[in-house]
Amino acid sequence: CDYDGPAMKTQVPGPRSQELTKQLGEIQNVGAVNFFCNYNESRGNYLVDVDGNRMLDLYTQISSIPLGYNHPALIKLMAHPDNLSTIVNRPALGILPPGNFPEKLMESLLSVAPSGMTRVQTMACGSCSNENAYKAMFIWYRNKERGHNTPSAEDLSSCMVNQGPGCPDLSILSFMGGFHGRTLGCLATTHSKAIHKVDVPSLDWPIAPFPKLKYPLEEFARENAQEEARCLEEAEDQIVKWRHKGKPVAGIVIEPIQAEGGDNHASPEFFKSLRNIARKHGCAFHVDEVQTGGGCTGKFWAHEHWGMDDPGDIVSFSKKLLTGGFYHKNELQADQPYRIFNTWMGDPSKNLFLTEVLNVIRTENLLEEVTRSGKALLNGLYELQTQYPGILSRARGQGTFCAIDVCDDATRTSIILKARNKGVVLGGCGDRSIRFRPALVFKEYHVHLFLNIFNDVLAQH
Amino acid sequence: CDYDGPAMKTQVPGPRSQELTKQLGEIQNVGAVNFFCNYNESRGNYLVDVDGNRMLDLYTQISSIPLGYNHPALIKLMAHPDNLSTIVNRPALGILPPGNFPEKLMESLLSVAPSGMTRVQTMACGSCSNENAYKAMFIWYRNKERGHNTPSAEDLSSCMVNQGPGCPDLSILSFMGGFHGRTLGCLATTHSKAIHKVDVPSLDWPIAPFPKLKYPLEEFARENAQEEARCLEEAEDQIVKWRHKGKPVAGIVIEPIQAEGGDNHASPEFFKSLRNIARKHGCAFHVDEVQTGGGCTGKFWAHEHWGMDDPGDIVSFSKKLLTGGFYHKNELQADQPYRIFNTWMGDPSKNLFLTEVLNVIRTENLLEEVTRSGKALLNGLYELQTQYPGILSRARGQGTFCAIDVCDDATRTSIILKARNKGVVLGGCGDRSIRFRPALVFKEYHVHLFLNIFNDVLAQH
Ligand code: FES
Repeated sequence: CDYDGPAMKTQVPGPRSQELTKQLGEIQNVGAVNFFCNYNESRGNYLVDVDGNRMLDLYTQISSIPLGYNHPALIKLMAHPDNLSTIVNRPALGILPPGNFPEKLMESLLSVAPSGMTRVQTMACGSCSNENAYKAMFIWYRNKERGHNTPSAEDLSSCMVNQGPGCPDLSILSFMGGFHGRTLGCLATTHSKAIHKVDVPSLDWPIAPFPKLKYPLEEFARENAQEEARCLEEAEDQIVKWRHKGKPVAGIVIEPIQAEGGDNHASPEFFKSLRNIARKHGCAFHVDEVQTGGGCTGKFWAHEHWGMDDPGDIVSFSKKLLTGGFYHKNELQADQPYRIFNTWMGDPSKNLFLTEVLNVIRTENLLEEVTRSGKALLNGLYELQTQYPGILSRARGQGTFCAIDVCDDATRTSIILKARNKGVVLGGCGDRSIRFRPALVFKEYHVHLFLNIFNDVLAQH
Repeated sequence: CDYDGPAMKTQVPGPRSQELTKQLGEIQNVGAVNFFCNYNESRGNYLVDVDGNRMLDLYTQISSIPLGYNHPALIKLMAHPDNLSTIVNRPALGILPPGNFPEKLMESLLSVAPSGMTRVQTMACGSCSNENAYKAMFIWYRNKERGHNTPSAEDLSSCMVNQGPGCPDLSILSFMGGFHGRTLGCLATTHSKAIHKVDVPSLDWPIAPFPKLKYPLEEFARENAQEEARCLEEAEDQIVKWRHKGKPVAGIVIEPIQAEGGDNHASPEFFKSLRNIARKHGCAFHVDEVQTGGGCTGKFWAHEHWGMDDPGDIVSFSKKLLTGGFYHKNELQADQPYRIFNTWMGDPSKNLFLTEVLNVIRTENLLEEVTRSGKALLNGLYELQTQYPGILSRARGQGTFCAIDVCDDATRTSIILKARNKGVVLGGCGDRSIRFRPALVFKEYHVHLFLNIFNDVLAQH
C-alpha cells in the first residue's frame, strides 16, 4: 500500500493542474492552491497529482491525514453495509444519536482520553471545537462567579441584545504566535499572521508572549529558563490586569507546540507553571491539540510529554482525529442542554474511521515508529544545518513533528518549490520555517529518502 | 424505499433508548437527546429507533435530510471505487483540491446558484459558512473604505493584538428572533433564545425588529404592511445610529423565514425594501438560507419567492445541501488567499452526495411535489386550527416549510410527545410553535397520514 519512491513527470504545478487552476479561478480565489491531486492514485506516504507526478508527502493536507492515503483498513470499512448507512444518514447527534454512539465513543475517543478527563463532546472541525470549548469555559466561570447555575432575569434579557450582564465581559488569555482557528471567537485568540486577522472585528482580550527559545534546547537551558520565566510572569500580569479592567480571564488557551506560528516549543516546566497560574487565578486551562494531537509527537497527545496527571481542564482536537471535539473535566460540562449545541455536533462517519485509525496505531505500534522516524529526521536536520549553516538553523521537533528555519522567506519559498519538483511536498509555518508533518506511517526509510532529496536541493542552492 | 406507515412497539423513548441515554450521560450532557436511532433500518420518511419503533419523520434531523433515510441513489454512489477514495481521503481543499473539484462544483452547487452569483466557497457547516461570509463582508467593506486593497502597516500591526484600526469597529445588523449559528461571530447575530447566548461574551452590534405578522397574511394585508414598514424604518435607523457610534454596519444578515425564532415570515416587499436600504447605505446584503435552502419551500431557495434578479450579495447554506458554504458576488471575493481559509474548506464527500441529491430533485420533480404536499399540509393545518381554536392558531408556511402555534409551551411539549408515541416525529421552534420540516420526498399521502394522527392527538387533548 505504498509506492517505492517519488516519480516526477512534469514541473509542479503541471499543465493539467494549471488548466484546472484557471477553471477553479472562475469560481473561487485560487491564490492558495498548490496543485490538483489524484486522490485515487495516491497511496500511503505518496500524493499523486493530476499530471501523474508522485510525491513523498511531508505535509499531509496540513497535518490532517493520520495513516497516509487510501489506507486499506479504511477502504475496507466501507464494505460493511452498516457503515454505508452511517455515511449516508448524517444525524443530528445531539438529539437523535445512533444506537452505537456511546459504544463508538468508548472504543474511539475515550480510549485515548487525556489524563483526568472522562467526558468528550464531538464537533466537526478545529474551529467549532475551540469555539465551544471557550463557551464551556465562560459558562463554567459565570456559574462559579454567581455561586449557582441560574442566570438572573437580567442576564436572560440583556444577553438577547448582546449586552451585559447576560453577555459578560469575560476574556480568554492567549499567546502571541498562537493559532486556534479563524471563526470570530477563535480568531480573537489567534496571533500568527496578520493576513488571518486584518479587517475583522475582534474582542479586547489579553495576549501573553510565548517563549522564544534557543535550540537545541539542552545547550541553552539557562537562557531558555529565563525566557520562560519572563513569559510566565507576563501571563500572570495580564490575568491580574484584565481582572482589574473588568474583563476577567475565564480561561487560558495554549498549544503544546505553537504550530502555524512557527513550531515554537516550550519546556514541560513552562506548561506546569502555567497550569498552576491558571489554577491559582481560577482560570480554566485549555490545551489546544488540534495540530499536535493524534500521535505525531510520538505520544498520542503532545501534552503527555509534560508528564502531568492533571494537564488541563479542556483538550480540543481535530485534523488527524478526523472528527473535531473536546475532552473536558466533569466541572466543565454545561449544566443545561442546548448551551453547547449545533445541528450536527460532529459526524459519526468520522468516528467510524477514527476507531479504525486507532486500531491501526495500536496494532502497528505507530507511536514507536513515529518516535524512531522522528529521531532519524531530527538527526538528519541537525546534520544538514551543520552542513549548510548559511541556510538552515534551529532544527527542532518532537516525534516527526519537526521544523527548521531558513535564512529568509524567499529562500524558504524557493527551497519548498525545488523540493516539490524533486518529489517532496513540504509546508511552511511562521515567518521562515519549514514544518514537517508526515503521516504516522512515515518510516525511517522515508526519512532517508527525504533527507537525500532535501540535501540535493540545498546543495544546488 | 419507504415503509407504509408508522409502527410503534413501545413508548418513546423505549427501554433500549433509556438505557443508552444513561450510558451516554456518563460521557456527555444528554438533556437534549430525544431517543436513539437505528439508521440502518430507517427508510425514506420513516425514522426507526433502537426499540423498533418506526415513526413518520417531519423533523428530519433539524431539517437536514434532503431525500429521506437511506435513499438508494445515495447508497449506490458508494459502490464506485473513485467515491470510496473521496470519502477516505479528506483533502485540504483550499490548497490541494482533487482534480474533479471544479467540475463537481459546476455540476452541483453552481447548477443551483442564486441569481447574480457565479462564485461559491464551500465550508463545512452553517456556522463556518456564516462566519466566513461575515469576514468576506468586513474585508469588502474595509477595502471600500480605504479605497484600495492594501492594509496599512498600522492595520497589520494593530490587528495582531486585536486592536483597531486593523481589527476595525465594524458591525453586522441582524434581526430580533434571527438565528445564524452559535460560534462567537454568528452568535452575536443570533437572537432566538436566551439559553443560546447567556454567559457568552458578545459584540455590540445593532439589532432591528423582525416583523410580527398576523396570519393568514392575505387577511391582514394592511396591518402587516404597517408592521413591516415599522421594522424597515427601525433597521435604517440602526444603520445610521451605528455609523454615528463609529461602528458602521458592513452587512445585513437575514433569514428569508426566521426558523429557530418561530417560523416568522415577511413579504417579498419587505425583503425588497431591505435590500434597497442595504444598497443605499453601502452595506452588503447576506441572505442566510441554511435552513430555508434546498427545496423545502417549493423553490430551491426561499429568496426566489421574492422574485428579484438581485436578491443579495451573499447567500449561505448548509443542512439539506450536506456541505456548507456561501455564494457571493464577484466583489465580495477576498482579494488575497488565506483570508477566507481553514484546513478542510468543506468536504468533497458531501459534494458527491449533493450532486446526486440534485439529480434526484430534478428527475423526480421534487420541488413540484413539495409545493403539492405543502399545500395539502397547510390546508390541513388551517382546518385543524378552525376545529381546535383553543389549541392551535397562526398556521403558516411555504412549501412544506410550515408551522403552527400552540396555546402555550406546556401544551406544545405534550402534543409533540403524544404525537411521537403515535409514530410522528415533530420539532418545536420559537416560544410555542411546532415546525414541520419533512424531507423533500414527503408526499401528499404522507401529509394525510400525518394529519390523521395529529387530529387524534388533538382530539384527546
Ligand atoms: S465551524 Fe466547525 S465545521 Fe463549521
